[in-house]
Amino acid sequence: MLDKKITNEKVLRDPIHNFIHIQDQVILDLINTPEFQRLRRVKQLGITSSVFHGAEHSRFGHSVGAYEIARQITEHFDQYYGDVWDSNERLVTLVAALLHDVGHGAFSHTFEHLFGTDHEAITREIIMGDTAVHTILAQVSTDFPNKVASVIAKTYENPQVVQLISSQVDVDRMDYLLRDAYFTGTKYGEFDIDRILRTMRPTPTGIAFDIAGMHAVEDYVVSRYQMYLQVYFHPVSRGMEVLLEHILTRVRELYQASHHNPVPEKDFVGPLLAPLFDEKPLELDDYLKLDDNVFMTYINIWQSHPDPILSDLSQRFLGRRPLKSIAITNETAPLLGELEQLVDNAGFNPDYYTARNDAYDLPYDDYKPNVAKPRTQIDFLLADGTHRELSDLSTLVAAIKGKASLDQRFFFPKEMLNIEPDELFADTFKTFRSFIRNNALTTPNPET
Amino acid sequence: MLDKKITNEKVLRDPIHNFIHIQDQVILDLINTPEFQRLRRVKQLGITSSVFHGAEHSRFGHSVGAYEIARQITEHFDQYYGDVWDSNERLVTLVAALLHDVGHGAFSHTFEHLFGTDHEAITREIIMGDTAVHTILAQVSTDFPNKVASVIAKTYENPQVVQLISSQVDVDRMDYLLRDAYFTGTKYGEFDIDRILRTMRPTPTGIAFDIAGMHAVEDYVVSRYQMYLQVYFHPVSRGMEVLLEHILTRVRELYQASHHNPVPEKDFVGPLLAPLFDEKPLELDDYLKLDDNVFMTYINIWQSHPDPILSDLSQRFLGRRPLKSIAITNETAPLLGELEQLVDNAGFNPDYYTARNDAYDLPYDDYKPNVAKPRTQIDFLLADGTHRELSDLSTLVAAIKGKASLDQRFFFPKEMLNIEPDELFADTFKTFRSFIRNNALTTPNPET
Amino acid sequence: MLDKKITNEKVLRDPIHNFIHIQDQVILDLINTPEFQRLRRVKQLGITSSVFHGAEHSRFGHSVGAYEIARQITEHFDQYYGDVWDSNERLVTLVAALLHDVGHGAFSHTFEHLFGTDHEAITREIIMGDTAVHTILAQVSTDFPNKVASVIAKTYENPQVVQLISSQVDVDRMDYLLRDAYFTGTKYGEFDIDRILRTMRPTPTGIAFDIAGMHAVEDYVVSRYQMYLQVYFHPVSRGMEVLLEHILTRVRELYQASHHNPVPEKDFVGPLLAPLFDEKPLELDDYLKLDDNVFMTYINIWQSHPDPILSDLSQRFLGRRPLKSIAITNETAPLLGELEQLVDNAGFNPDYYTARNDAYDLPYDDYKPNVAKPRTQIDFLLADGTHRELSDLSTLVAAIKGKASLDQRFFFPKEMLNIEPDELFADTFKTFRSFIRNNALTTPNPET
Amino acid sequence: MLDKKITNEKVLRDPIHNFIHIQDQVILDLINTPEFQRLRRVKQLGITSSVFHGAEHSRFGHSVGAYEIARQITEHFDQYYGDVWDSNERLVTLVAALLHDVGHGAFSHTFEHLFGTDHEAITREIIMGDTAVHTILAQVSTDFPNKVASVIAKTYENPQVVQLISSQVDVDRMDYLLRDAYFTGTKYGEFDIDRILRTMRPTPTGIAFDIAGMHAVEDYVVSRYQMYLQVYFHPVSRGMEVLLEHILTRVRELYQASHHNPVPEKDFVGPLLAPLFDEKPLELDDYLKLDDNVFMTYINIWQSHPDPILSDLSQRFLGRRPLKSIAITNETAPLLGELEQLVDNAGFNPDYYTARNDAYDLPYDDYKPNVAKPRTQIDFLLADGTHRELSDLSTLVAAIKGKASLDQRFFFPKEMLNIEPDELFADTFKTFRSFIRNNALTTPNPET
Repeated sequence: MLDKKITNEKVLRDPIHNFIHIQDQVILDLINTPEFQRLRRVKQLGITSSVFHGAEHSRFGHSVGAYEIARQITEHFDQYYGDVWDSNERLVTLVAALLHDVGHGAFSHTFEHLFGTDHEAITREIIMGDTAVHTILAQVSTDFPNKVASVIAKTYENPQVVQLISSQVDVDRMDYLLRDAYFTGTKYGEFDIDRILRTMRPTPTGIAFDIAGMHAVEDYVVSRYQMYLQVYFHPVSRGMEVLLEHILTRVRELYQASHHNPVPEKDFVGPLLAPLFDEKPLELDDYLKLDDNVFMTYINIWQSHPDPILSDLSQRFLGRRPLKSIAITNETAPLLGELEQLVDNAGFNPDYYTARNDAYDLPYDDYKPNVAKPRTQIDFLLADGTHRELSDLSTLVAAIKGKASLDQRFFFPKEMLNIEPDELFADTFKTFRSFIRNNALTTPNPET
Repeated sequence: MLDKKITNEKVLRDPIHNFIHIQDQVILDLINTPEFQRLRRVKQLGITSSVFHGAEHSRFGHSVGAYEIARQITEHFDQYYGDVWDSNERLVTLVAALLHDVGHGAFSHTFEHLFGTDHEAITREIIMGDTAVHTILAQVSTDFPNKVASVIAKTYENPQVVQLISSQVDVDRMDYLLRDAYFTGTKYGEFDIDRILRTMRPTPTGIAFDIAGMHAVEDYVVSRYQMYLQVYFHPVSRGMEVLLEHILTRVRELYQASHHNPVPEKDFVGPLLAPLFDEKPLELDDYLKLDDNVFMTYINIWQSHPDPILSDLSQRFLGRRPLKSIAITNETAPLLGELEQLVDNAGFNPDYYTARNDAYDLPYDDYKPNVAKPRTQIDFLLADGTHRELSDLSTLVAAIKGKASLDQRFFFPKEMLNIEPDELFADTFKTFRSFIRNNALTTPNPET
Repeated sequence: MLDKKITNEKVLRDPIHNFIHIQDQVILDLINTPEFQRLRRVKQLGITSSVFHGAEHSRFGHSVGAYEIARQITEHFDQYYGDVWDSNERLVTLVAALLHDVGHGAFSHTFEHLFGTDHEAITREIIMGDTAVHTILAQVSTDFPNKVASVIAKTYENPQVVQLISSQVDVDRMDYLLRDAYFTGTKYGEFDIDRILRTMRPTPTGIAFDIAGMHAVEDYVVSRYQMYLQVYFHPVSRGMEVLLEHILTRVRELYQASHHNPVPEKDFVGPLLAPLFDEKPLELDDYLKLDDNVFMTYINIWQSHPDPILSDLSQRFLGRRPLKSIAITNETAPLLGELEQLVDNAGFNPDYYTARNDAYDLPYDDYKPNVAKPRTQIDFLLADGTHRELSDLSTLVAAIKGKASLDQRFFFPKEMLNIEPDELFADTFKTFRSFIRNNALTTPNPET
Repeated sequence: MLDKKITNEKVLRDPIHNFIHIQDQVILDLINTPEFQRLRRVKQLGITSSVFHGAEHSRFGHSVGAYEIARQITEHFDQYYGDVWDSNERLVTLVAALLHDVGHGAFSHTFEHLFGTDHEAITREIIMGDTAVHTILAQVSTDFPNKVASVIAKTYENPQVVQLISSQVDVDRMDYLLRDAYFTGTKYGEFDIDRILRTMRPTPTGIAFDIAGMHAVEDYVVSRYQMYLQVYFHPVSRGMEVLLEHILTRVRELYQASHHNPVPEKDFVGPLLAPLFDEKPLELDDYLKLDDNVFMTYINIWQSHPDPILSDLSQRFLGRRPLKSIAITNETAPLLGELEQLVDNAGFNPDYYTARNDAYDLPYDDYKPNVAKPRTQIDFLLADGTHRELSDLSTLVAAIKGKASLDQRFFFPKEMLNIEPDELFADTFKTFRSFIRNNALTTPNPET
C-alpha cells in the first residue's frame, strides 16, 4: 500500500504555478518513471515553436501543471465540501491529471493522422501494460490502475472526477491555456484561475461554479476561443505541419518500396524509426522510444537523402521554410484543381507540395443530448439553489456557443508567389497570383 | 549593397520583449539562414531544464532577443546622441548582437570541454567562412563580414560597439538574465531594463550610464549574482552534466577502440556523430549538423548498447537520475580518494560514476589593468561631468566586487546514500554517509 | 514661444507605463500648475474604492498616463508616417491628452448630476480662462489655447488629433482601462497596448489600424466591455454613490432653508463648500478649490449635524454601510411604489433611503450617420488597401455592437433584509423580502 | 462567543494577494467598524505620492493584506505543524495582523514628531478602550482584547505569534514591501512571498525558515534595503514633509497665540482640528476623527490665511513645490549656519524655509543581546537540525547587516538655486550655489 504522503513535500519550480507541490510518494515515483520523463522530449505545441519561438515547452511541464491544478482543487474540496466530495477520490484524481497526456507522441497530431494511433488509447495502455507506471499504480491497490484508466476513458463512475479531468473547464485546458499563453508570449490566454478554483464546487452530478465566478469563467472561455484563432490555428505553423506530414509519407513510401530493392533504407531510418514504418503494429516499447529528437535527427539526416523530394522537403523543414497558404471556402474550393495544376506546371509534385488543411474547434457548447459526444455544459449555482448555464448569463459566450471556429486553407510552395521579372515560370506564377486577393482564394478577374 | 530597411517591419512575438522588430533586410535574411535556424535546436541552458522544467528555451530566442535590445539602444542613440554616436555603426551592432551565439553547439559547456572547441572562434568562422551567413553579410559590403567578426573578437576599433556586445552590461547578458528568469520561473533575474536602456549613454571611450540609472544597474548586477548561485550553479543539473560528459567520454573510447575490432561502432554513432569521434579536426559543415536532438537521439539508442557502463549511464541520463553531490572545500578535498574507493567497492567504476565539478563566476569587477583580461567597469556620469564606478556607489555591489562565486562539489551515485537495512553493501554505504554532514564533505567522527 | 524641448527629459515613475517621459517645457509647466496638481486630490474612480480598495488612484496619474500614450503615438507617427501625419500637430495632441480631464471635479458623476455642471465645459474654461494653465498655453502662441480647447470640444479641424483624444480607441480609454484594471486588481482590463500602438496609423480621414492589430483591438473592446459590467457598474459602489447624492441633496436643502433661520448652516458648510450651495452660478475659482478631501471632511463633520437624516447618512457613508440593491426591469419597475411604501413604514424617509439607479454603457458601435452623436467606427486596412470595420472581422465584437449594457437597480436600507425574529417591523421586512428572488425584484408569490 | 467561521467566506479583491479571504465573523465585523474604515482615509505612504504618483494607496489595503498573509501562514501551520504550533493561536494572530496599524494617524511620521503621539500606543488604546473594535473583541472572550493588545505590545507569551506580527520578516513588512512596490511601480520591492511562506516554520522559540527558502528570504531583505534607499528616503517627498511640518508648527503657534487676540483662529482650524492644537491631551474620539482629508482640506483653506508664511507654505504644499535639498555629512554640517544666513538674506525665514532632515533605517541585524531593542535574527534550519543565521549564509546580507542606511539632508527654498541674471539676490544665490557640488554640501572653492 503506497498511497502515503511524503514527510517533506518536494517542489518543482514552475513558471505558471510558481511551484508544483508533490506530497505523495506515488506522484513522485510516477514522475520518475522513464515513461513520464519521456514527456520532456515531446513539445507541447509541436511545430508551433517555429512561429512563436518561446513556445518550446514540453508536455512534461503541462502534465505536472495539470496535476498541480488538480491538487489545489482536491485540497479545496477536501477542506470545504466534505459532504458532497469523497476525499478518497483525491489520489485517483491527482494521478489521472498527471498521466492524462503520458501517451502523447512526438508531433501528435501529424503522427496520429499518418499512423492511425490514438494517444488516449496509448495512455490507457501505459497505465494497464507492462510499464514502470503500471507497477507503481498497482502498488496502491490491485484495481487502482484500472480506476485511473477508466477516468481517462471517461467511464469512471464518479462524474466529479471525470469532469475535473475531461470537460469544458478541466485541469488539462486550464493548464495548457495559461502555459501556452505564457510561453508564446501572447496575452489572450490569461484568465483568473484562482477565482475559478475558489468558486468551483462539487455537486452530486459533477462540477459547477458559484455565480460569483461567472466573469472569471466567461473570461476563460473567451480566452480559449482567442487562443485557438490566434495561436493554435496559425497558418504558418500549419505550413510546417504539412511539410512534416509529407516528409513522413515520403519516407514510408521509400522504406516500404525498398524491401524489394537491393539497397534498403535501413540506414536512413535507423533502429528507432524502423518499427514505425514496418508493416506491422507498433509495439508499446517501440512507441515509447520515439520523441521529437528522433524525428528531428532523422529529418536532419534525410537532408542528404538521394531522393530529391525527401531531401528538399527536409531542408525546407529544418531551414524553416514553410509552405505558404491562402484561405478557402466551400465556394472557392472547386478552384483548387486549377491551382494544383499550376503548381505541377512549375515543377512541384502536387502530392508533396500542396495540401488542403482545415483547422477546427468548437469553443463552447451547452449539453445537447442528441449529438454524438454530448458536452457537459458549464453551470452556475444561484442564490436560490437553481442552476443556470453559462451562455444564458454571458452575451460573449452566447455569441460563440455551438459555432465552430473553422479555418480552411490551401498550401503551396512560396515560389509560386515569385515576382522576379525574368523567371522561367513567370506566366504560371502570374496566373497563380490572379487567384489570390487579401490572402484568400478568389475567382480571377478575366481581364487581369 | 543590401543595408536597406524593409518597407513594412516584420515582428516576431517574444515573451520577454513582447515583439522583436525586424526593420532591415539583412537581419531578416540572416535569421532565415540554416546556420541561424539551427539555434532553434540548441537549448539556451542545456540540461538545466532537467531541474527547471520551464527552461526549455533555445538559443534562437536569446539571439533575436539580444538583437532586439541592440535595436532599441541604437535607435535611442541615433535619436539623442548623434554627437557622440555614429549612426553608421547601427547595422554592425545589430548584426553582431544577432550572431554573437551562432557558433554555440549542443550542450556547449560539456562539448567544448571534451572536444576542445571554442564557440566564439566558430562564430567567427561562420561569419567568415563558406556559409549562407557570410554570403548575406558580404552583400552589405566587402569588409562587412570582417567588421562583424572583429566585434565578436573584441578587436573592433569602436569601443562603444564592442562594449554593447561584450561587457559587464551588454545585450547578451541583459537578454539572457531576463529570459532565463522568465523560463525558469525564478524571480531573481528580473530587473528594470527600460530604465537601464534610457540611462545608457555613449561616451568617447565606450558606454556609461546616467547617475539616474544607478539603482537599476545595481539591481541588474545583484540579479545576475543571484541567478548564478540559484540557477546556473544548481547541483542537480551539474549532476546531469557529469553524466553527459561521462557518456561522451565512454563513447569516444569505445569508438576509437573499435577501429581495431571486427565489429565497428558505426551503427551506434551514425553519420552525424561519427566526424566528432574521428581522430581528425571537425569540419564546420559537420559541426553545423550537430544539435541537441542528435545527442539526445543517440543517447536514446545507447540505452541498448552492449557496453554496460554506456547503457547504464544513458538510461540514467534519459530517466533523469543524476549523480548526487556534496559540497567540498580545499580543506576537505583530500578525503575524496577515500570516497572514490568506497564507490569502487560498491561496484561503480569511479572514472564514470564519480566526478569533481567546480562552478565559478566573477559577478562583477572594476577595471584592473594588470589582470589577464581586464574588465570594462560600469561607470556613471555625475552632474558635474565626472565619472564614478558602480561599486563606489553601491554597498551591495561593493560586497561582491572582485569576489568569485565558487561552488566545488563531488558527484557520486545516489545508491551510495541507500539506507535499506539488508543491503549487500550496507557497511560501505554507512561508511560513505559518515563523511557527509549538511550536504557537505566532513571528516567522519571516529566514534560513529 | 515656448514649444521647445527640454535638454534632459524628466521622468515620472508610473506603474502602468513604467515611466512618463516629459520632453517639452510646456508639458512640465502645465503639470506644475495648481489646476493640474488639484487632480491629485480627485480619485479616478470616485467611491469605487469602497468596493475595490486598491482603486484609490487619482486623475493625476490617469492624465499623465493618457499624455504618455499620446507621446508614444506621435513619436511613432513622426518617425514612420510623415506623409499622412503633420508633425506640427504633435504638441497640441500632447497638451490635449494631458489636460482632457483637468475640469473633472470630486465625485464627478454625482456632482454633475446634482449641480448641473459639465466637466468638459469646465476643462475648456480652464484652458481659455484666467488660469496658470492658460498663461502657459498662450506662451506657445496666441491661438494655442483655442486650438487645445477645440480638440477637447471635438471641433478641431484635424480629425486625426480629435480621434486620438476622443474616439472608441483613444488615449483616454486606453489609459483608464489599463490603470483601473491595475489598481482594482482585476485582470479583465488588460490588453496588448504595445500591439495596438504599433498597428495604429494616421489616414487622411482620421485613425485606422493595420489588420495585424485586429486581435489586440478586439481584445481591448472586449476588455472594456468586461470592465463596465464588473467594475464600473458594481452595485455596491452605486449604493455608496446614492448615499452621497442624498447627503448633498439634504445639505443643500438645509443650507438654503437656513437663510430664513436664526441659526445659519455656515459652520457646517464652511468657506469652500458655501459657494456650491449658494443660489448663484459657481465661479471657476471656487470650483477649483473643491476636491475629494473637502467633501470627505465635511461629511465627517456632518456626522454630528443636528439633522438626524443628514447625520445618519453621513455616518453610513464614512462607515461604509451602503444602501443595498436589487435588479429591476421595465416589467417589474411598477412594483417599486409598494417597496417604497414598505421602506416608509419601517421608518425610513424614502426620498433619502431609496433610489432607482441605472448604469448604462454602449460598449461599441459602428458609424451610424443618423444617430445624435455618430461614433467613429474602428477600421482596419487590408492588404489590398480596402477598409473593414471591426465587427465585420470579430464575432465577439459583433455580439456586443450597438447593444447597450444596462443595469437597472432599486436601492434601499440594508435593514429591510433583517431576519431577526423579534424585530418590531418583522412583518414589514418579511413582506419586503417576498419581492426578492435571486437578488432581483419579482412579483411575490401570493401564498408565501 | 463569537469566534465562529462564517458559512460562505467573503472576499475582497486585492491587487497584491488577488483576494483577501474572510472566514471569521470577528474579522468581518472588525473591518466594518468606523475605527477600521477610517484607515481608508489615511494614505499608507503619506506624502510620498507627490513623487510616486501611483502610491496613493491607503492603510486599509495594507491592513487587510497583512491579515491575509497571516491567514495563509496560520492555515499552513495548522495543516502541517500541529506539533509545534497551537491552532488556538490562529484567531489572535489574525486579529493582531488586521489591527496592527489601526492607531495610525494621518501623515503619521510628521504627526507623531510634532504632537508627541505614538501610533502603537493608540492602537492598544483602540483595542482596550470604549470603541466598536473593543466591543467585538470582547465578545470572543473577556481576555481577548488584552491578548491582542499584548501581541501589539510584544509582551504576549507565545513568541511565534509575536514574531509573525513584529520581527524582521513579519506580515507587516512582507505586505508593505509588495504593496508599496506595486503602487509606486518600482520593481525593487518584489520578492517570492509564496516561497517564504512555504518554508516558514514554527519552532519552540519562535519562527524559523527551512534552508530551502534561504534565497527567497535573502532577496526579501535586499529588496527591503533597496526600497528604503530608493522610495522611503526619497529627498523630494521629504521636501514635502518638511513643508507639512512647518505648516502645522506655524498653525499651532498662530492658534495658541490667538487665545489672547480679539480674533481667534477658530474659523481657520475648524471643529476637527481644534482639539489637536488646544493645550490639553487629545482624546481618542477626537484623534479618530482626524484623517488625511481633514489636513488637506484645512491646508486648502490656509492658502488664503492672512499670515503670509502660512499661506505661502500652504500654497507650496498643495501646488507640489517642495523645498529642495542637498546631502550633508557630519563633516560638512558646520557649514549649515552660513547657508541658513544666506536663506535669511534672501528674505526667507529660516525657521520655516530651511530644515535638516535625517532618514535612517537599519536594514537587518542579527540578535545582539546588549543593545536597547535586540532584534530577533532570521534563522534557518539545516538538514541536521542545527540553525544558522541569515548573514552567515548570504554575502549580500552580510554586507548590510548592522549597518544603518542614513541619508542626511539640508532643505531650503528652490529660489536659492535661481540663475536668472538680473535677480535682486543674484549674489546671494551665487554664493549659496558655491556650497553645492553634485547635489552635496561642500566647502566652496575660495577662488570661485
